[in-house]
Amino acid sequence: MLAIKLISLLLACVVLFSVVPASGQDPLASWNEGAAKRAILEFVRVTTDKDSPKVVPPAERIATFDQDGTLWVEHPMYTQVVYCLERVPAVVKAKPELKEVEPFKTVLSSDRAAIAKLSLKDLEAIMAATLSGMTVDEFRADVRQWLATAKHPRWNRPYTELTYLPMQELLKYLRAHGYKTFIVTGGGQDFVRAYAEAVYGIPPEQVIGTMGETKYGYDKSGRPTLTKEPKLLLNDNDSGKPEGIHLMIGRRPYAAFGNTAGDRQMLEYTGAGDGARLMMLVLHDDARREYAYGPARDLPDTKVGAFSKELMAEAQQRGWHIISMKAAWKRVFAFEPIEP
Amino acid sequence: MLAIKLISLLLACVVLFSVVPASGQDPLASWNEGAAKRAILEFVRVTTDKDSPKVVPPAERIATFDQDGTLWVEHPMYTQVVYCLERVPAVVKAKPELKEVEPFKTVLSSDRAAIAKLSLKDLEAIMAATLSGMTVDEFRADVRQWLATAKHPRWNRPYTELTYLPMQELLKYLRAHGYKTFIVTGGGQDFVRAYAEAVYGIPPEQVIGTMGETKYGYDKSGRPTLTKEPKLLLNDNDSGKPEGIHLMIGRRPYAAFGNTAGDRQMLEYTGAGDGARLMMLVLHDDARREYAYGPARDLPDTKVGAFSKELMAEAQQRGWHIISMKAAWKRVFAFEPIEP
Repeated sequence: MLAIKLISLLLACVVLFSVVPASGQDPLASWNEGAAKRAILEFVRVTTDKDSPKVVPPAERIATFDQDGTLWVEHPMYTQVVYCLERVPAVVKAKPELKEVEPFKTVLSSDRAAIAKLSLKDLEAIMAATLSGMTVDEFRADVRQWLATAKHPRWNRPYTELTYLPMQELLKYLRAHGYKTFIVTGGGQDFVRAYAEAVYGIPPEQVIGTMGETKYGYDKSGRPTLTKEPKLLLNDNDSGKPEGIHLMIGRRPYAAFGNTAGDRQMLEYTGAGDGARLMMLVLHDDARREYAYGPARDLPDTKVGAFSKELMAEAQQRGWHIISMKAAWKRVFAFEPIEP
Repeated sequence: MLAIKLISLLLACVVLFSVVPASGQDPLASWNEGAAKRAILEFVRVTTDKDSPKVVPPAERIATFDQDGTLWVEHPMYTQVVYCLERVPAVVKAKPELKEVEPFKTVLSSDRAAIAKLSLKDLEAIMAATLSGMTVDEFRADVRQWLATAKHPRWNRPYTELTYLPMQELLKYLRAHGYKTFIVTGGGQDFVRAYAEAVYGIPPEQVIGTMGETKYGYDKSGRPTLTKEPKLLLNDNDSGKPEGIHLMIGRRPYAAFGNTAGDRQMLEYTGAGDGARLMMLVLHDDARREYAYGPARDLPDTKVGAFSKELMAEAQQRGWHIISMKAAWKRVFAFEPIEP
């Protein structure tokens, strides 16, 4: 009898320990108590508690995250744009005829003011030239090599350290509750895949981004290769986000996180599903710890990182939650000291 | 002391039962002993035994499967082509102007001989018309409804029952060893996604197929929609298979399974990676239990389901394994009686 009781007790312990985290461990420790944190906890509870009427089957637990400005710093320039600009000398070395051609000439001049004034069309030309022509393996290796040494001008740290600690906690918290986490970025899909697994624990097949064609072929030794082509398949911004989600996942997300008007359609599409859905926007309103480029500045929707009055109005109308960096986050970066 | 011993024993039992399958359970019970089965067992052993020098990290364990002719029957016609032909009356009802236009006129005539003679271009026109114009949700519902009643002419059973039992066992066996299984099909991505989870346990985000564009918009009530467009994004056949794999997964598979020349590049790409790789081709040489359209019939590469002399020669040269249905499979379908 003692033995049977002990076995029952032991089994009970096994069950308990596998469900309840050690006491005192807050999975969202870098979040201040408040509306944003409550919304996350409540969403996870109602969609994963098996007795909840809104429980979501594990296979359907999909959460999508914009990257730049949502998971890591996007100012003063997208990391990928910095990479492309710094890659121009190598491209011109391989194709000397570009040396005197704009916008490459301006980039080579190192005239920061002129570079800052490059148009979207100029940047697209630079991106097309610097993100194609190599095999996918060569590209991945080059991005990783660049990221190992490149540093953000303000913090003088690798870009990969500039992820938001509260969002890293959120990714882990959702995964611990059976959610598959996807990045849905306007950035290049292959660029983000080069580091997403190491930086966020998100494997390449869960990174959706702006996609270019590749071309299958053979190198001189007859070995199969995939070469990056300068042809766009899908621009993963705005309407391209739900389109990219359908293309790559084929299911509607239950939760979606963004920070600009480019994420609007992804949040709309997510919110149009049945049952409990969570839509959140990171509001950059903390110039001291990061940047403030929220609606206070009233930037137009088309500007990088803009969070317009229109977006704020739609968020309020549709019940999207605003994550004020200043109010919601106890710490922004993992390297920051813990404030009292 | 007794209590402690019991606890140790109990823990030992828990560990044992969670690792070792019940004795006598062969995970590949429908496979005859032979070269094909040995190749599978050996590949899984060397890539998943943590003491093996060729062990593959769990996150990189990717296996890709062609569908038609590799996982289920593709004769006498691809299931999706049957679906598209049967959908023509509904399309013509919505667009009466197509009634007198070829190839729709021929399809409506129900003249089987004439329908069988439709060209690839005709079929493409039919597929473009029948696979677009509706929302992705409407399309999924329609495919599921059709599959619930449509039957294969030879077996008079739903198409979804005509999957190969040995391949179903293989999918499960690989997944039990940490492999993520993907379908990489020339068929329509949205079409296969409508049933792949129920039929193979493969979720939509692990189905790669021929991809068309979708367009984000709003219905009359303002609800966001994704509508299927008649514009091709990627033809997931031949070179399109490794290109689609890179687009959707971003990693090279460790194992790839196909049955025709359309899978050649996928197998080449898989085999070009380092370490242990497994490439296999199903050879249809069993007219009694399924069909025989292997190299014996000497069909050209371009013909549906063809397995040419050239493909067989490449397989031998590159060390791809041939799965002879006749020799390698004890049972072909789950509904078949077990033969002595």
